[in-house]
Amino acid sequence: MTTETEKNLVVGIDVGGTGTKIGIVDANGEILARDESIATPQYSDFNDFVDAMNGVVQRLVKEVGAEGRIRGIGIGAPNANYYAGTIENAPNLPWKGVLELCKVFSEKAGVPVFATNDANAAAIGEMKYGAAKGMKNFIVITLGTGVGSGIVINGQLVYGCDGFAGELGHVTMVRGKEGRKCGCGQTGCLEAYCSATGVARTAKEILKKDKTPSTLRGMKNITSKDVFLAAKKGDKIAKEIFKQTGTMLGEALADFIKFSSPEAIVLFGGLTKSGKYILDPVKKAVDKNVMPIFKGKAQILISQLKDSDAAILGASALAWE
Amino acid sequence: MTTETEKNLVVGIDVGGTGTKIGIVDANGEILARDESIATPQYSDFNDFVDAMNGVVQRLVKEVGAEGRIRGIGIGAPNANYYAGTIENAPNLPWKGVLELCKVFSEKAGVPVFATNDANAAAIGEMKYGAAKGMKNFIVITLGTGVGSGIVINGQLVYGCDGFAGELGHVTMVRGKEGRKCGCGQTGCLEAYCSATGVARTAKEILKKDKTPSTLRGMKNITSKDVFLAAKKGDKIAKEIFKQTGTMLGEALADFIKFSSPEAIVLFGGLTKSGKYILDPVKKAVDKNVMPIFKGKAQILISQLKDSDAAILGASALAWE
Repeated sequence: MTTETEKNLVVGIDVGGTGTKIGIVDANGEILARDESIATPQYSDFNDFVDAMNGVVQRLVKEVGAEGRIRGIGIGAPNANYYAGTIENAPNLPWKGVLELCKVFSEKAGVPVFATNDANAAAIGEMKYGAAKGMKNFIVITLGTGVGSGIVINGQLVYGCDGFAGELGHVTMVRGKEGRKCGCGQTGCLEAYCSATGVARTAKEILKKDKTPSTLRGMKNITSKDVFLAAKKGDKIAKEIFKQTGTMLGEALADFIKFSSPEAIVLFGGLTKSGKYILDPVKKAVDKNVMPIFKGKAQILISQLKDSDAAILGASALAWE
Repeated sequence: MTTETEKNLVVGIDVGGTGTKIGIVDANGEILARDESIATPQYSDFNDFVDAMNGVVQRLVKEVGAEGRIRGIGIGAPNANYYAGTIENAPNLPWKGVLELCKVFSEKAGVPVFATNDANAAAIGEMKYGAAKGMKNFIVITLGTGVGSGIVINGQLVYGCDGFAGELGHVTMVRGKEGRKCGCGQTGCLEAYCSATGVARTAKEILKKDKTPSTLRGMKNITSKDVFLAAKKGDKIAKEIFKQTGTMLGEALADFIKFSSPEAIVLFGGLTKSGKYILDPVKKAVDKNVMPIFKGKAQILISQLKDSDAAILGASALAWE
């Protein structure tokens, strides 16, 4: 027999700068139907974008026979504010200013809509279905175009006084004039070194200084995948890129551990595909930079969720709460 | 008429490296009786120390006619672990190893005993009776012999997975070989610059480099009070000491804001007595080092509680919870 609760479903949406992914999710975290057809930048008008999302949601609902069973919609989006239900001045989205995402969408869809930023959504996804299942204190670090974070303390996501807590990609790692410029307007941010573009910049710098032969030499727009493939073949420059990137990431994680003493830090995103090449220097730097009471405590884990699943599942979990 | 709840009292104890302060506290945060006679280092045996504390507690209870009304005892102590009820390897206390503080004391006193570190106790004190009254997200930074912190998120103290969260005095501010050695074994920690001894070291360094006349020149063991008195008289070196100390503290606070987006950061301890000389550079550095979304949000406050009261009150609040 299916109970009323088991019949309930939610929608999870991952709004990204390039594409928007939508899924219908059941109480067990199964994605019953999904759509990845919406190209975010094609919608210059925000209302049209919400209509497009709503159109896909209604179509998927019909596909799985879920009419009347959708309890709510959860959205992960850049610069989304959980408290206000808004997207605020997101640099990578086509619409400027403060957008009343949840209010507008909820009126169209007829169900409650909740939103948070993508890293927070990933953290909720890891807690409900991933590497942080059952944990009450952990941090998710998303390593993508930018570096984001979702922090869970005492089993609750940390939103802070204004909904904007957890901007760990922008802690200052290099102080003074030597710090790289970051997209946020500051210099020396973690994101300027450990994001996809950060890794590419590090590669460029090392290739310029170190004349060791490398398959990366002459490549344009070096990605962490390029560096990984080169490192696997024993490329010394590639290994050095991972060493510098991982060491700085580990130094940052050590400071985060001193803040909230988490059970684990879950790394998420493209860079983690490089496995031990990035993990080994991270772990070494964490261990070197924490005090004795913290040594060997916080596990450094790699997300086990598929990138696309984690974003949809995490966002959907907002609607269950 | 006095209700049963109003009759209830608690004991607050502040265990310090030099002295231990004990107070009987009522539900309104009034300290009905207090004692500061116990000199911690005189007790080489930990059991004797607990007996001494218990003796004072029983005497104070009789003094205020509180027999049968004590609901519990709360203790703030260096390296105290809230979860375990222990003091663990505290460098500034006479007893080594892991001490079963709460268990031993509770057996002697016949009431429940709770413990946390002194900075966490200060944070609870500020939340119940001080500058953070009514706030759900704030951080207390204690600037004393060391630099400690108590973090409150969603109205709850952050203990982390092991009870040791909130070691913000040991985030790394100066990376690499230039970082000052810290008592924790690491280098470049905030505590090595912004504690009492940190300020004295900064004074020494600046006096060596900068030959401007100063009343601080030739002084031994320069304290923040010395620097304050000199700065008030227009001493340039003194002002520079505050500028460097405040700037680094502000840079650290900016990173903490990116973590938990607190409503306020409350500064506590000796250094704060210097008022605007330290606060101005702190505020300037915070503002310079946060992203636009955080600018002007977190208030930087100075504790309004008397140092001795805050420690006793904060510790006592543990017993109410």
